[in-house]
Amino acid sequence: MIKIGIYGYGNLARGVEKAIKKNDDLSLVAVFTRRDPRTVSIDTPTAKVESINDVEKYVNKIDVMVICGGSATDLPTQTPFLAKYFNVIDSFDTHANIASHFSNVDASADASKHVAIISVGWDPGMFSLNRCIMSAILPDGKDYTFWGKGVSQGHSDAIRRIEGVVDARQYTCPVESALEAVRSGSNPELTTRQKHTRLCYVVAEEGADKARIEKEIKEMPNYFADYDTTVNFISLEELKKNHNGIPHGGFVIRTGETSEGVKHVIEYSLKLDSNPEFTGSVLAAYARAAYRLAKRNDFGCKTVFDIAPKDLVTVEYSELLKHTL
Amino acid sequence: MIKIGIYGYGNLARGVEKAIKKNDDLSLVAVFTRRDPRTVSIDTPTAKVESINDVEKYVNKIDVMVICGGSATDLPTQTPFLAKYFNVIDSFDTHANIASHFSNVDASADASKHVAIISVGWDPGMFSLNRCIMSAILPDGKDYTFWGKGVSQGHSDAIRRIEGVVDARQYTCPVESALEAVRSGSNPELTTRQKHTRLCYVVAEEGADKARIEKEIKEMPNYFADYDTTVNFISLEELKKNHNGIPHGGFVIRTGETSEGVKHVIEYSLKLDSNPEFTGSVLAAYARAAYRLAKRNDFGCKTVFDIAPKDLVTVEYSELLKHTL
Repeated sequence: MIKIGIYGYGNLARGVEKAIKKNDDLSLVAVFTRRDPRTVSIDTPTAKVESINDVEKYVNKIDVMVICGGSATDLPTQTPFLAKYFNVIDSFDTHANIASHFSNVDASADASKHVAIISVGWDPGMFSLNRCIMSAILPDGKDYTFWGKGVSQGHSDAIRRIEGVVDARQYTCPVESALEAVRSGSNPELTTRQKHTRLCYVVAEEGADKARIEKEIKEMPNYFADYDTTVNFISLEELKKNHNGIPHGGFVIRTGETSEGVKHVIEYSLKLDSNPEFTGSVLAAYARAAYRLAKRNDFGCKTVFDIAPKDLVTVEYSELLKHTL
Repeated sequence: MIKIGIYGYGNLARGVEKAIKKNDDLSLVAVFTRRDPRTVSIDTPTAKVESINDVEKYVNKIDVMVICGGSATDLPTQTPFLAKYFNVIDSFDTHANIASHFSNVDASADASKHVAIISVGWDPGMFSLNRCIMSAILPDGKDYTFWGKGVSQGHSDAIRRIEGVVDARQYTCPVESALEAVRSGSNPELTTRQKHTRLCYVVAEEGADKARIEKEIKEMPNYFADYDTTVNFISLEELKKNHNGIPHGGFVIRTGETSEGVKHVIEYSLKLDSNPEFTGSVLAAYARAAYRLAKRNDFGCKTVFDIAPKDLVTVEYSELLKHTL
């Protein structure tokens, strides 16, 4: 059994916990929380809940620590810190800062002889892996990434900060005609507005000025101004009933030519009922790989680009040859 | 530059040759043919055409030999033989015999300290890689593979052997309603007949008994009897005009749950204008990986399951972190 720790206990962590239950070779040892451990109840009776201050007591008792903090402020310090004591894995997703996060984590993991796999999930993660392999196979081509239909937590939060808004849910939606244009192999140049639309469900306070709220949403720079945005006002009951999940997904499509006029389309897509549960499942599979790399003394910081498919699965190689190849 | 040899010169080899032109770090050194080399003209002025009997003269002059023989009778002997002298790669696709091919090639490559990557292409190959990774991420799930719409050479040949048939082209087509049932996550049990149909374009001799030909096709065991088969008789001109290409493609779809009722769909699909050109492009990318593994003394027989994505691409790792992750 591979002994897993979970550091932080929010939505993503609960997704990791569920994924561990689906993998017979993974066992949850402890969850580490910033809160008072006595106030945190987890879903695994055999695992402990501990304060993050006690994490060092678990050195040698945990094979891989899955770090479930946020990319903005948690992971940049948590992952290098924890890599001193454990093999670690995170889902760092601030694309612009990945290179510096990588070198910080690499320095720590390398010095302490641990394995760290960063930016694991679906984007970055599965989408990155597909962009990489697709580009290797069709070097004379172009790839496109579309997200959705799915809930963007950041955009939903931005709407909630507007005066008079009780609650809100924002869906990012890929534009079907843009997807079709890409699949046709015509290599379209697509603006932000042409690729995605934003669909908002907003619960307003009683008597709030809905026209003003709608205007503030649609004109919000960075978040909405560059998109075709639709705002629907609904009741709190309706929001809770129909928009309670955290679905997401998307598409990576590469088209390219292998000779004059000979075109090919490679497409990878995800349709996820729960973004955190799926991300947690990807983390669980790569935690297995981190464990195996550590056993081979292949230390330092890694990403999905470094991991061979066979290190993600429990089935024997001979079975892979027979049934999967 | 990675020096490539091509062993055999049919459709697939011409696809590999085209792929080499699209990859700046690959250079074609020589093509080896069973025919009289003077009768074979290739598309790369800087490369030599040699007899297969002279292949040993190229030891140390070729980094990776791409073996383009057929799986039925060529590759089972060619790949173990050539692995004595070269790093090799093939597209062996007789699923039932992969395990024995693997061990024959492994013994040869291991003894001679070479790298061999077998069964590279799209199925086996990219589809296998996706089946493997998808199963790691959604262990509580089920995957389905559909092929087409695409030309099956074996089925086309089978029709051509019927008396009174001048030429024929057979397309394997996935059944759209079956695809939709799979995508819905309902885990349907699908029979052979429910997954694919067979569409045949047949040129009959003048005066031939078309009803008899159609009956012989539809009742042919293994090839057609288990499928809903449509037979269209067309003229030779129409066949040449509209059915000259070798398109193919398909779908790998895995659906699974991460917790009670929380479903996810992962889908990978290919739509290829030319089956041999795309397969050749996959071989080219994995030839690069074979070269790199050999440089690291990681000898023996490998498959797509052993290869990390970063070993397929020419871009620097730091660039992958910045632009692909």
